[in-house]
Amino acid sequence: MAGLSARALPGIPEVSPGADIAQLIVDALHGEPPAAGQVVAVAHTIVSKAEGAVVALADVAPGERALELAAQGGRDPRVIQVVLEHSPEILRAEHGVIISRTRHGFVCANAGVDASNSTGAETVVLLPRDPDASARRIRARLRELAGAARGPGSTGASAGAGEGAGAAAVMITDTFGRAWRHGQTDVAIGLAGMAPLDDWRGRTDATGLTLMATWIAIADAAAGAADLARAKDSQEPVVLIDGLERFVGVDDGPGAAAMVRPLDEDLFR
Amino acid sequence: MAGLSARALPGIPEVSPGADIAQLIVDALHGEPPAAGQVVAVAHTIVSKAEGAVVALADVAPGERALELAAQGGRDPRVIQVVLEHSPEILRAEHGVIISRTRHGFVCANAGVDASNSTGAETVVLLPRDPDASARRIRARLRELAGAARGPGSTGASAGAGEGAGAAAVMITDTFGRAWRHGQTDVAIGLAGMAPLDDWRGRTDATGLTLMATWIAIADAAAGAADLARAKDSQEPVVLIDGLERFVGVDDGPGAAAMVRPLDEDLFR
Repeated sequence: MAGLSARALPGIPEVSPGADIAQLIVDALHGEPPAAGQVVAVAHTIVSKAEGAVVALADVAPGERALELAAQGGRDPRVIQVVLEHSPEILRAEHGVIISRTRHGFVCANAGVDASNSTGAETVVLLPRDPDASARRIRARLRELAGAARGPGSTGASAGAGEGAGAAAVMITDTFGRAWRHGQTDVAIGLAGMAPLDDWRGRTDATGLTLMATWIAIADAAAGAADLARAKDSQEPVVLIDGLERFVGVDDGPGAAAMVRPLDEDLFR
Repeated sequence: MAGLSARALPGIPEVSPGADIAQLIVDALHGEPPAAGQVVAVAHTIVSKAEGAVVALADVAPGERALELAAQGGRDPRVIQVVLEHSPEILRAEHGVIISRTRHGFVCANAGVDASNSTGAETVVLLPRDPDASARRIRARLRELAGAARGPGSTGASAGAGEGAGAAAVMITDTFGRAWRHGQTDVAIGLAGMAPLDDWRGRTDATGLTLMATWIAIADAAAGAADLARAKDSQEPVVLIDGLERFVGVDDGPGAAAMVRPLDEDLFR
C-alpha cells in the first residue's frame, strides 16, 4: 500500500549566521543522517538566518513610497522599504498588503520578507538569495555527514559505494498565498534531489484514456504536507517526509525554479 | 512527536450512479469505518459519478463559440460546450485552454469538467453540484455505518454516546492549477467535519512575536498530501489521513466554500 508520512524534528536550536543546517539536522536525529529517499523539508527562515540573509531595521532608511504605503497599512515603514527593495515588480500595493514578484520569480506577499519570525523585533528575514543553491549545499553536506556516519575509513572523497546515492533530498519551504483561494500553503522555494513536477501529460491512466494536462507539483504538495506535520508555534523548522522515494534521485535535478511559471505564460498578461 | 500520515485505500470499485460512497469506503476497510479524527479524502470524480453528474457527449450540441475554441485547440467541441455551460465567467480561453470561474466560485481549468477519467471516452464528469453538501452526506452516512458497526442495539437514532463525535471528516478533492506556478495540486472542493483554514492571524509564535497574516489553508494542504499517497494511475480515489485530529470536529463546519476568495477580494480586479 502506497503511503506518505511526515514528522517534525524536535530539537533544532535557534539558528545564527554561519550555522551548519545539515549538522543541526543530523544532531537532532541523534547523529543518524536522514535516510536515502527521504525528503528533508526545511523552513526557509533558518536557512536565511544561517546565510546571514537578515536585515537590521536600524540600518534601513525608508523612502517616500515606503512611508506612504506604511502609513496606509499601519506598518513599519522600514519593513516596507526592505520589501520594496526586494520587489523588482509590484503586482499590487494597498492597505499595507504588497504582492510582488521577487528576483527569483516568486509571486508572494511582502517579497517573502518575514518580519515575524526573526530573533527580536528589530530584524527581518529575507528569502535565501538562491534557494535551490542553498538546498544543494545542505544536501551535499548531509551526504558528507552520511559518509562520516558510516565510520572511520569511509570519510572523505574516497568514501565507499553508496555515497552518491545515499543522500536524502532537501527542500526549502516558504508560505505563499494563492490568487483565488483564501489562506496560504507552504510551497517549495528550493529543492535538491527531488523532482519538482511529476509529468503525466500525454500518459494514460489505468483505464487507458489519456490524462490531459496532468502535471503535478509534487514538491509543493510535499511542502504543504510537511507544514501539516508541525504546529505553527512549535518552532520545528525541519520535517522529514517518507513515501516519496520514487521522486528522489541521485542528481540534484532542476530545483524549485522549474515550478516558476515564466512571465510570458503568466495567466494575467 | 507530531506527525502526518496518508495511505491510499485499495479496492474501491468503479462507481456507478447511485453508488453509496460511504459503504464502498467501509467495504474497502473490510467493514471497519474510518476512525474518529481521521480525514477521508475522496477524489471528486467518484462522487460526481455516484451523483450522476456525468454528461453523455452524444447528447451535446456544440455552439458556435465551442466549435471555434475547439478548432483552435484541437479539442472535442462537445467537451468545450459542456465546459462553457459550466463557466458563468471565463477568465481566459485560448489555444484550447479555458480558465473559468465555476458556479461554486472555483477558478480552474475547464470548469473542472473531466474528460479523461470517465468510463469510456464518450462521457465527461462534472464537478458535484454542491461538493460541501456531498461531503456532509458521505460523512453522515459514515456516521450511520459506524453506529451499525458497533453492533446490534446501537443502530438508529437511539445509538449510544459517541455517535455524534465518532465520525471521520470527509474531504472531496480536485486537481487545480495555480496562477504563478507550474503544475497542479489537489485542493479541497468539499469538506465536512474539518476546519478548512487554521487562523493564526494576530496570534503569536513561540518567540512571542506576532505572526502576521498567517492563515493556513490546511484542507488544501491535506488534499495535496492525500494525492502524494497514491500513484496517479492507481485508481485509488480514497485516501485516509491521520494526524489532523486537532482540526476535526463534531460539527460539519463551514466547508470548503470558506476557502473561495470572494470576487471583491480577487487579486486581479
